[in-house]
Amino acid sequence: MSKMHQDRIASVAAKLALTDNDVIFITPGADLRYLTGYDALPLERLTCLAVRSSGQAWMIVPTLEKPSALAHGVPDMNIELLDWQETQDPYSLLLSVVGTSERPLVNNLMWVEKAFGLRGAFGKEVALAGKLLSDIREVKTAEEIVFLHEAGAAIDSVHSNMYKWLRPGRTEREVGKDIAEAILAAGHVTVDFVIVASGPNGASPHHELSDRIIQAGEPVVVDIGGTMASGYCSDCTRMYVCGEAPVEYVEHYAVLLAAQAAARSHARPGVTCESVDAAARDVLSSAGLGDQFIHRTGHGIGMETHEEPYIVTGNKSLLVPGHAFSIEPGFYFAGKFGARIEDIVTCTQDGILSANNNSRELVVL
Amino acid sequence: MSKMHQDRIASVAAKLALTDNDVIFITPGADLRYLTGYDALPLERLTCLAVRSSGQAWMIVPTLEKPSALAHGVPDMNIELLDWQETQDPYSLLLSVVGTSERPLVNNLMWVEKAFGLRGAFGKEVALAGKLLSDIREVKTAEEIVFLHEAGAAIDSVHSNMYKWLRPGRTEREVGKDIAEAILAAGHVTVDFVIVASGPNGASPHHELSDRIIQAGEPVVVDIGGTMASGYCSDCTRMYVCGEAPVEYVEHYAVLLAAQAAARSHARPGVTCESVDAAARDVLSSAGLGDQFIHRTGHGIGMETHEEPYIVTGNKSLLVPGHAFSIEPGFYFAGKFGARIEDIVTCTQDGILSANNNSRELVVL
Repeated sequence: MSKMHQDRIASVAAKLALTDNDVIFITPGADLRYLTGYDALPLERLTCLAVRSSGQAWMIVPTLEKPSALAHGVPDMNIELLDWQETQDPYSLLLSVVGTSERPLVNNLMWVEKAFGLRGAFGKEVALAGKLLSDIREVKTAEEIVFLHEAGAAIDSVHSNMYKWLRPGRTEREVGKDIAEAILAAGHVTVDFVIVASGPNGASPHHELSDRIIQAGEPVVVDIGGTMASGYCSDCTRMYVCGEAPVEYVEHYAVLLAAQAAARSHARPGVTCESVDAAARDVLSSAGLGDQFIHRTGHGIGMETHEEPYIVTGNKSLLVPGHAFSIEPGFYFAGKFGARIEDIVTCTQDGILSANNNSRELVVL
Repeated sequence: MSKMHQDRIASVAAKLALTDNDVIFITPGADLRYLTGYDALPLERLTCLAVRSSGQAWMIVPTLEKPSALAHGVPDMNIELLDWQETQDPYSLLLSVVGTSERPLVNNLMWVEKAFGLRGAFGKEVALAGKLLSDIREVKTAEEIVFLHEAGAAIDSVHSNMYKWLRPGRTEREVGKDIAEAILAAGHVTVDFVIVASGPNGASPHHELSDRIIQAGEPVVVDIGGTMASGYCSDCTRMYVCGEAPVEYVEHYAVLLAAQAAARSHARPGVTCESVDAAARDVLSSAGLGDQFIHRTGHGIGMETHEEPYIVTGNKSLLVPGHAFSIEPGFYFAGKFGARIEDIVTCTQDGILSANNNSRELVVL
């Protein structure tokens, strides 16, 4: 892995060299994991990677984390490892080896207290990395695509077993607990989210598990995902009903199915992200369901469940092979019901491959 | 809970009124949970609470999260709820209702991209909340103390069952998996960390579970914690050995036990945080183990595992009733072994109560 991570850090340096900035600082989180494989704890104590446009790299960690950083092979990636004691100022120490910079960059999700700590030490305003890191991360390698498809197959297998857990008389929480166990049993190392939204709760896209008892004949949104040992995430939504769904719902669902299919057919290299959103939205709008589709069509996915590219109006970026994202239109009627159909897809040379392949029809249990 | 959260928000407003700042912005995380009970997802989309020194409060959420915010009773806390559509600029929208400010504050752990988004909308530099929020959060109410002691009892019960899982021939990962299940079974809703560091791995304070096979006669550091349904965290370390530990280790361990006891005896209202650290450190240093105690003595705990007050050299803050923190001295010999003894304690009117009450002796299995 050392070579792969060295290459990734070299890509960051090369991108930096094309900007007015000559150094970037990255604290724990998906950016750091992607670049180094080191899943450092996001703590109050500073852990921070610094990469210069020259290609030089340093990582500062608290002394007590040094054995962890060594175990992750940080020095083997040609990253100079520094450690700071509890009573030292890690920002000054980092500055003393990295040297000054006119306009240091920081990763977008750095905690502002850390960003301001760097600003204080440098005596210079820091700027957001913006798309510098995400431009690299959003184009997946073949290996990453395989990891995402493995994650997709794992979450598909959980959906395939839904009949074992989802039935009238059980609460959302009970069903959710079974699903969480199944997510782990299917090979994920963490359960990232479990949405079981029955009947009117389905109108809340990010509904939390409740003690509501599931009734026969009401649609249930099941949107679930986890992270695999590879570090890559799954995320898939299917719709279920125990018994017979309301006629009105079934009619709307047919439109949603067509909308999701339209977005999948449209997605390919060279089209804009917003046009994929429009492909789904147009179908729903034409059927009078546009106002009920209250969110964007999708989000990128990789080592984070939500990352670039976002499939949303206004995003004129073009899809390229290696992009991985969700296609998940929905409709939401407050107090009544909701629906969403979600697949993770990866962009190939001439179209897309779906990482989720269970039937997209309303599943009748 | 609505009244409690309203009171907490009123405390923030009152603190603000004592500063040069007149508004504070808070994004998802423990600060937001503490103030509102709303465990909003930390997403790329902006969710943000704004509190003015006048006591007025607003929360902006993405439209798709509005049903969740309503389900959490946000408007019942006298917080005006706003929502923004995917293609709107949430920062401008928030500014348009909250009004301008000369020096807006932001919570310390806000993502820098959000802080800069606010700065851009306001056209004013934002400043860190610093201790404004932690000064409120670190002094626990009686109810919060009860929650922390419940969490302590839950993790103690996991330690009490260690004999079922920890034995020679098993790997750290196998033992860790059993412990994780037990943490949930004991009433936690999440497993926050499971450290099982055998033999030389014990020298890494934050060692990650590995496939190393545990051997007879080697000390094993078990440092575990989770979060209860109440939102409060547990964190407790005990030391185990299967068979007979090395004589040298047993000698060092007796010193550590005395160091931990010295810090517990010393801790009471009116003493400085750093003096509690010194109480433990002096015992280890006198016995020649000062250089092996490579971290501070403790950290505050509440809705986060690590929060104020930190028990560290340089922290001259005085302990007051309601403070809750860990006392966890240790020693670490690279390549050989390590040890740590950790209790969560809460400060009373005249001393401390321990939330962890299993024997602190080296447990021989």
